[in-house]
Amino acid sequence: MTPKPVSLAEKFALFSEAWQPKRIGAIDGYDVRIARLQGEFIWHAHADADEFFFVVEGVLRMHFRDRHEDVPAGSLIIVPKGTEHKPEALTPETKIMLVEKSETVNTGDGEANARTVEPDYI
Amino acid sequence: MTPKPVSLAEKFALFSEAWQPKRIGAIDGYDVRIARLQGEFIWHAHADADEFFFVVEGVLRMHFRDRHEDVPAGSLIIVPKGTEHKPEALTPETKIMLVEKSETVNTGDGEANARTVEPDYI
Repeated sequence: MTPKPVSLAEKFALFSEAWQPKRIGAIDGYDVRIARLQGEFIWHAHADADEFFFVVEGVLRMHFRDRHEDVPAGSLIIVPKGTEHKPEALTPETKIMLVEKSETVNTGDGEANARTVEPDYI
Repeated sequence: MTPKPVSLAEKFALFSEAWQPKRIGAIDGYDVRIARLQGEFIWHAHADADEFFFVVEGVLRMHFRDRHEDVPAGSLIIVPKGTEHKPEALTPETKIMLVEKSETVNTGDGEANARTVEPDYI
């Protein structure tokens, strides 16, 4: 395997759909994913995986059951395993980079639903 | 634990020394670290850990034994486990964010040396 630089801007240019994370790299058993966010996602939790969100562009509002946190571009937030959360794009579009266990499902634990996707590699 | 946003700019403002990674978060057994780079580091490898480098500011040149790759701000490179590499700041200062196993030593496997540091939490 030959390590090559990966430009986030070039990878974001490859897709336009919101809430559909794409895999752009792997660190041991973890994925590096990017996603475009528009509007609100759904409440969910990951019982076994902390989830790292780095905001590339725009502002991410992370809702928790008792409050929310606004995360601007250049900042990150780590949602601990088992913590219910609901991401929301506060800007018309928010671009994020994620690092999480490769088996992490975007809609969290439990039954798959209409918003569940298996991330493609791009 | 209450998840809070972490601003890279605010964290970088807390230290000025080069080649001394600081811990700014944890994802399961992985650290999120940031570092300032100036000039060249040393050749090293991590037998058991892939290493994720995201360039926040400046340009990172990653030397491999057979070539090098230049990684500008907004891009990342993942160095696979066991791969000898030597990071270099191509700009007067390069700022990076790292994700790697928490036990990863900055100077790689083998004896500690003058450039080995245990990352502080900031």
